[in-house]
Amino acid sequence: MKIITFLTDFKTKSGYPAQMKGVVSSLTNARYVDITHDIAPHNIREGAFVLRTCAPYFPDGTVHVAVVDPGVGTERKGIVIATRSQILIGPDNGLLLPTAHFVVYEISNKMYLSDSVSNTFHGRDVFAPTAAQIINGVPFEEIGGQIDDFVDLDFGSAEIISQTATGKVIYIDSFGNIITNIDGAKLRDALDYDKKITVFISGRRRELPFVKSYNFVKRRQYLVTIGSSDLTEIGINHGNAAQKFGIKPGDEIKILFD
Amino acid sequence: MKIITFLTDFKTKSGYPAQMKGVVSSLTNARYVDITHDIAPHNIREGAFVLRTCAPYFPDGTVHVAVVDPGVGTERKGIVIATRSQILIGPDNGLLLPTAHFVVYEISNKMYLSDSVSNTFHGRDVFAPTAAQIINGVPFEEIGGQIDDFVDLDFGSAEIISQTATGKVIYIDSFGNIITNIDGAKLRDALDYDKKITVFISGRRRELPFVKSYNFVKRRQYLVTIGSSDLTEIGINHGNAAQKFGIKPGDEIKILFD
Amino acid sequence: MKIITFLTDFKTKSGYPAQMKGVVSSLTNARYVDITHDIAPHNIREGAFVLRTCAPYFPDGTVHVAVVDPGVGTERKGIVIATRSQILIGPDNGLLLPTAHFVVYEISNKMYLSDSVSNTFHGRDVFAPTAAQIINGVPFEEIGGQIDDFVDLDFGSAEIISQTATGKVIYIDSFGNIITNIDGAKLRDALDYDKKITVFISGRRRELPFVKSYNFVKRRQYLVTIGSSDLTEIGINHGNAAQKFGIKPGDEIKILFD
Repeated sequence: MKIITFLTDFKTKSGYPAQMKGVVSSLTNARYVDITHDIAPHNIREGAFVLRTCAPYFPDGTVHVAVVDPGVGTERKGIVIATRSQILIGPDNGLLLPTAHFVVYEISNKMYLSDSVSNTFHGRDVFAPTAAQIINGVPFEEIGGQIDDFVDLDFGSAEIISQTATGKVIYIDSFGNIITNIDGAKLRDALDYDKKITVFISGRRRELPFVKSYNFVKRRQYLVTIGSSDLTEIGINHGNAAQKFGIKPGDEIKILFD
Repeated sequence: MKIITFLTDFKTKSGYPAQMKGVVSSLTNARYVDITHDIAPHNIREGAFVLRTCAPYFPDGTVHVAVVDPGVGTERKGIVIATRSQILIGPDNGLLLPTAHFVVYEISNKMYLSDSVSNTFHGRDVFAPTAAQIINGVPFEEIGGQIDDFVDLDFGSAEIISQTATGKVIYIDSFGNIITNIDGAKLRDALDYDKKITVFISGRRRELPFVKSYNFVKRRQYLVTIGSSDLTEIGINHGNAAQKFGIKPGDEIKILFD
Repeated sequence: MKIITFLTDFKTKSGYPAQMKGVVSSLTNARYVDITHDIAPHNIREGAFVLRTCAPYFPDGTVHVAVVDPGVGTERKGIVIATRSQILIGPDNGLLLPTAHFVVYEISNKMYLSDSVSNTFHGRDVFAPTAAQIINGVPFEEIGGQIDDFVDLDFGSAEIISQTATGKVIYIDSFGNIITNIDGAKLRDALDYDKKITVFISGRRRELPFVKSYNFVKRRQYLVTIGSSDLTEIGINHGNAAQKFGIKPGDEIKILFD
């Protein structure tokens, strides 16, 4: 079973994701899965994070088409990345990079694209047909040449210096949970569950319980936990922590390990 | 054709539903249908209502995975319910219960789950792989033992005493229509279409037309009708009744039958 | 591979789209694609526009079920339209008409519908089973008789008189881009990219750059471009033009061609 996934900032109301699926359905009978079409408009970093957390759960051979593409129609390249077991397709703006750093091809052969490529919607006219052709067996070399001057994007990793982990917020999920780039394994090694730990967030020092999951604190109480992507999360049980703290991606978070 | 459905409060923007589908796609080629990922956060009753209204329309053998799971990672059980013709999988918090009261199994055999089960996302690490294994033919008894101390949830049914039906709001749909637990058949038996009836709502007595469908009253006018789940609904033609009345699930509604 | 698409104003949170898919799954193993369920409530024109822009990208034989249906349960007809290569099913209120004007059949044979047709949800009880039956090979003539007194809907086309194109807004997309009914080809023929052109919008005269795509102007700057449906669009790079201009579908737009 061949699978094509889609991740965009189009929202479904526009019909743009459906146009991409129409194109793919006309070329291949691969199945498709929507990762999401609700990435914040033009937010490449948010798209990159969601793609990175989802891709590993899909089977080998899955083709991911990701389109958060404010530079569409300009000189920015379209690329295909072949990872060890999957394929990523989208604009060369960093969106695909946190997911994989393997072999990168530029989409340059126009033979496999729509007859008339619009200037504003390469998701439909370039990336979707490329995905279908790769599913149908067209080799990467036919799509375009290998490149190594692609645009990179890195979430950074939290530093730990003298018992202090200094990281940053990389994502706010739909519950308002604050996901940081502080590796969960480090917290698990250094700290005990159900103890209070010291967190610097929104410019204030707070003592918050470090717990196994959300419901180990009372409703409306703050907590620190290790989320399902093995990253450190700060949340409120039955509440929206990001709103409460007024925090956003990029903001600094510190956790003391003693 | 085997079908797995998903109902969650994750929103799609998080990528969490996609992670569940990735897991399922890696284990089985069953098709999946999203019932919805837009249940209000942690709202078990809303999830239970939507699941109950949708499940009967799916073919025999459908496996429904429902995850509104504020207690994830605590001692709350994961369960599988085998109904006469379908299978329900999710947390033991009442979410699945209005849909079916048949044989209930606890998910206790770790052999069929993900290698490392997170504390915060059993939808992906427990319920999705269990669904795939059941689709693949693993018998219920292999998943875990039968239990009868599961958590129940009941929408209640409206009482009718001396010509007064006293019920409550159980759901507000996306149009703002107010869906009550007053059985539509009772209204149909007792009242005539296109007559006015007396309704007590938001602490006020109102005379509203009882009509076959929304467009039988003028735009912006109130009405009472029998909705597509055969429950009594109060609405506004081309308007949002719940907003207008300031009403929410759990609020009392009375209808006079004379 | 047979495909059924769905376009509604139901939102997914209601579970109504899932009920339609359940019905279809019980009758056929055709695949389905959600065009969108996020059309603004009761907005037939918006639904008609999104359907018209998406349908051409789907393969021959695709069956589109569209339900924006404020008149459900009244005397308004249900119809099937057979186009040259696809089939459209939905209410007779203009929703399907901009997509195709071919042979129109009324859905009048109750034999292929649900046993008990509700008054409020023909998407589930009439249109979805009709789609499944047509996919399964039931001929149009079995569904009902041909009619020619159907409800029409037309987006109008912009007039060009003495170098002035007078059109109107027909859609605001999810980015806030303003899509007009001024044919892109006419702009491309008359004007040069990267020159300023004169636009009358929101009662004001403005000189805006005419560019190939959004990112050819700086962030937060206005622009005119030809969108992916080959219609003239007015937008803001990385911004929401419709909000900024306070503009909505139906509003007049003029562009000077000299």
